[in-house]
Amino acid sequence: MRYLLLKYKKKDKSFLIRDFSQDFHSHYGVITKEQLRKAKPGETISTQTGKEFLVEEPSFPELFKKIKRRAQMIPVKDYSAILANTMVGKDSICLDAGTGSGALACFLARFVKKVITYDVREDHQKIARKNAEFLGLKNIEFRSADIFNPDEIDVKNIDLFTLDVTTPWDAIETADNVLKRGGYLVSYSPNLTQIARMVNSLELKESFELIKVEELIEREWEVKGDRILRPKMRDIAHSGFLIFAKKLQ
Amino acid sequence: MRYLLLKYKKKDKSFLIRDFSQDFHSHYGVITKEQLRKAKPGETISTQTGKEFLVEEPSFPELFKKIKRRAQMIPVKDYSAILANTMVGKDSICLDAGTGSGALACFLARFVKKVITYDVREDHQKIARKNAEFLGLKNIEFRSADIFNPDEIDVKNIDLFTLDVTTPWDAIETADNVLKRGGYLVSYSPNLTQIARMVNSLELKESFELIKVEELIEREWEVKGDRILRPKMRDIAHSGFLIFAKKLQ
Amino acid sequence: MRYLLLKYKKKDKSFLIRDFSQDFHSHYGVITKEQLRKAKPGETISTQTGKEFLVEEPSFPELFKKIKRRAQMIPVKDYSAILANTMVGKDSICLDAGTGSGALACFLARFVKKVITYDVREDHQKIARKNAEFLGLKNIEFRSADIFNPDEIDVKNIDLFTLDVTTPWDAIETADNVLKRGGYLVSYSPNLTQIARMVNSLELKESFELIKVEELIEREWEVKGDRILRPKMRDIAHSGFLIFAKKLQ
Amino acid sequence: MRYLLLKYKKKDKSFLIRDFSQDFHSHYGVITKEQLRKAKPGETISTQTGKEFLVEEPSFPELFKKIKRRAQMIPVKDYSAILANTMVGKDSICLDAGTGSGALACFLARFVKKVITYDVREDHQKIARKNAEFLGLKNIEFRSADIFNPDEIDVKNIDLFTLDVTTPWDAIETADNVLKRGGYLVSYSPNLTQIARMVNSLELKESFELIKVEELIEREWEVKGDRILRPKMRDIAHSGFLIFAKKLQ
Repeated sequence: MRYLLLKYKKKDKSFLIRDFSQDFHSHYGVITKEQLRKAKPGETISTQTGKEFLVEEPSFPELFKKIKRRAQMIPVKDYSAILANTMVGKDSICLDAGTGSGALACFLARFVKKVITYDVREDHQKIARKNAEFLGLKNIEFRSADIFNPDEIDVKNIDLFTLDVTTPWDAIETADNVLKRGGYLVSYSPNLTQIARMVNSLELKESFELIKVEELIEREWEVKGDRILRPKMRDIAHSGFLIFAKKLQ
Repeated sequence: MRYLLLKYKKKDKSFLIRDFSQDFHSHYGVITKEQLRKAKPGETISTQTGKEFLVEEPSFPELFKKIKRRAQMIPVKDYSAILANTMVGKDSICLDAGTGSGALACFLARFVKKVITYDVREDHQKIARKNAEFLGLKNIEFRSADIFNPDEIDVKNIDLFTLDVTTPWDAIETADNVLKRGGYLVSYSPNLTQIARMVNSLELKESFELIKVEELIEREWEVKGDRILRPKMRDIAHSGFLIFAKKLQ
Repeated sequence: MRYLLLKYKKKDKSFLIRDFSQDFHSHYGVITKEQLRKAKPGETISTQTGKEFLVEEPSFPELFKKIKRRAQMIPVKDYSAILANTMVGKDSICLDAGTGSGALACFLARFVKKVITYDVREDHQKIARKNAEFLGLKNIEFRSADIFNPDEIDVKNIDLFTLDVTTPWDAIETADNVLKRGGYLVSYSPNLTQIARMVNSLELKESFELIKVEELIEREWEVKGDRILRPKMRDIAHSGFLIFAKKLQ
Repeated sequence: MRYLLLKYKKKDKSFLIRDFSQDFHSHYGVITKEQLRKAKPGETISTQTGKEFLVEEPSFPELFKKIKRRAQMIPVKDYSAILANTMVGKDSICLDAGTGSGALACFLARFVKKVITYDVREDHQKIARKNAEFLGLKNIEFRSADIFNPDEIDVKNIDLFTLDVTTPWDAIETADNVLKRGGYLVSYSPNLTQIARMVNSLELKESFELIKVEELIEREWEVKGDRILRPKMRDIAHSGFLIFAKKLQ
């Protein structure tokens, strides 16, 4: 599938073009389908009102930003912490629960061999499948099962088990079953009350070793000439905390 | 090659065993080569003085921590931010300059198809090659050339060009030559003076679009029962800043 | 002057009542002047639509939040850093430039003996005087003079000289003139480019010793029962940086 | 009492001279009592080995850094946050529990009318009294009583009640008794488990209104010429959290 990205130079706004059979309308004006078809990355094109857009080939992160997400989105910085601390790579197989919008599954699928993602909700699965398709990812397996019931999850030898659920402690048994020795359990929670309970549950389980609990704070900097050099004035102050545990036996 | 990790339970210390033909000596006591040979992951073994070690199969991140690094090491959180913001994956080819201890090249090699890394210093290359070998990575190509001279760098169509040098602005021309359209230039600097100069140099170059300047702050949390729930008291406060730019034309 | 604070319980909103001769109108409904006159701190009063307000005696910080401020307000955390690092107290005399809305002058006046504040703009002075009057502060002296011209500033033996201007380096000569030995110069800037230039200017001046450059990051935490324990999701990410220098000679 | 501060220029080290009847010995060499007696602020003096010290008049914050403190010291940024959020000033009376090394009592005494500080431990009181004397503070009253027993604390109409104890919830009753309407209760804890319990205890008490829970993170910046502009590489990452509550009735 062909995509083009139109970036409005002055406002840090971008629009993804997927349908080249229709004119593109925005409040900066209209770009005709003829213009869109002829547009080449690197060029500048203008609306009938003279507003200029830069034509770009979207990169994977730019497409990723356009997927459908739920209200409480996990920022990509937290996804990257999962890679940093588990280093699952090209040969790894990941189990992801719950699917939600599929954002984490899609992110991981870009780096690992295969992602198996579980969610009992049909509406979540539908959105997640569309997102994977939009990104051209073919190595995600969508399954419907209760992650808290080990008997329903019939996979083994998993390298990474990611949890983004409100009661992660209820999935420790499942994690214990599916992870290979040396594999990682990663759990994401917005609240420290959940983190404390999950850590304490893991400590009781001999087969897991707590590696660390971490929080990543992202600061974006503004730099312009010799005048502006400072962090952005307003930003997301908090998303969540991550627990990393290693399966020992 | 076979590795074992001995973790001293009480002190958060771990030792990597690579040589099973010798006794292992530490200030916790001695573990004999006979013990080492029979040790199985998940077991506990004791020194002659009764100090207990947990035997583990080292994971990739645990091995990565044992590679030889230079004084000013870049933390892994900054490496993974490169993945998160460029999303280079299994099919990507990366160019890395300069090699240094090879830590970034090794990290990227875990996730991408191939890493070509440049350094003019022989001593750096030697350490980096040993690190790659230690980690079992075979998709890194080590080259000796002046990254600031575009004529010496005869690669094309690169997905990601990473720079960890003191004068990154001198490598923009090279980056322009080797990157494919839609590819990313990422530059790491500990000082904002370097960041400001690099951003301003990139702004002058039409073929690049500045995506963002970011800093990641990692907070590790301590959690124990219902008493301890707080960030670590002392920590690394700063490593560096990252510039992300996209090649447009 | 008598003030009352009406806090709308459910929304974290508060209204200051200064005029007891009129009904109070808000989009939560009306509270009559009769109600206002009879209201006592600690009581709950209701609008005609049944919305409940808590009646409180405003504390000084609550009044301080109601003063008129300019667009780019400096948060109180940065003011407090001035106290922390200079410890000017009950016997100290401060010089403040420029006045702006008078917020810093008012803050300091609460703690020190006297604040002399300079601004050439009449509109600033007018707002600042009103703010001081509103807070009941009588130890602020408002002056109109060019802070960058040492000849116009005829004070001596100052304990603390605070600068919140875009070119602080132009005021170093004045600071040198007015500060007593052992006194402090504090300069606030939102950009590090300003900070770097000011630090370098101070380094050239033998009579000043740079103490530190600091940034304070405030995190507000949300705590509710055993469910919510996390930093606020969105917050001010940055205000500015502070330079502290001590006058030596 | 006369003090002098000797700052060793190259190492960011300073020594306080209180005894002018003896030579001063450090590993930079000896400065004789004759030199000390003649030393004037602003001058440079040398040891017999030629190491140079800058002679300074110590400021209050510089003296404050020299007081005797316990192992787990609270940084001054947290003390000043108490001033910023309660704005107790020249006319205020504060109650402080427990005294510990007296650091907070001394800090507050610099800004407010009077501080009454409680501690049952004689050894704490002794250190704290010495610290107050060293700083020349005469408005601190040291008392020995059990702060958790309201009957033992016979003061009233307090403007600010500061708590730095491990079980602050046990002092809420006392706070309720001693605070005047509109006064503030501030509690400092290193752990969020304590914070959560204290917040929940305060929520049950109608006479208190929770104002906020906050954490201050201090970043010190290094600035040198046009090369160095970055946060300090290592720093204190965490001290504690502060709860602010207002007494309503």
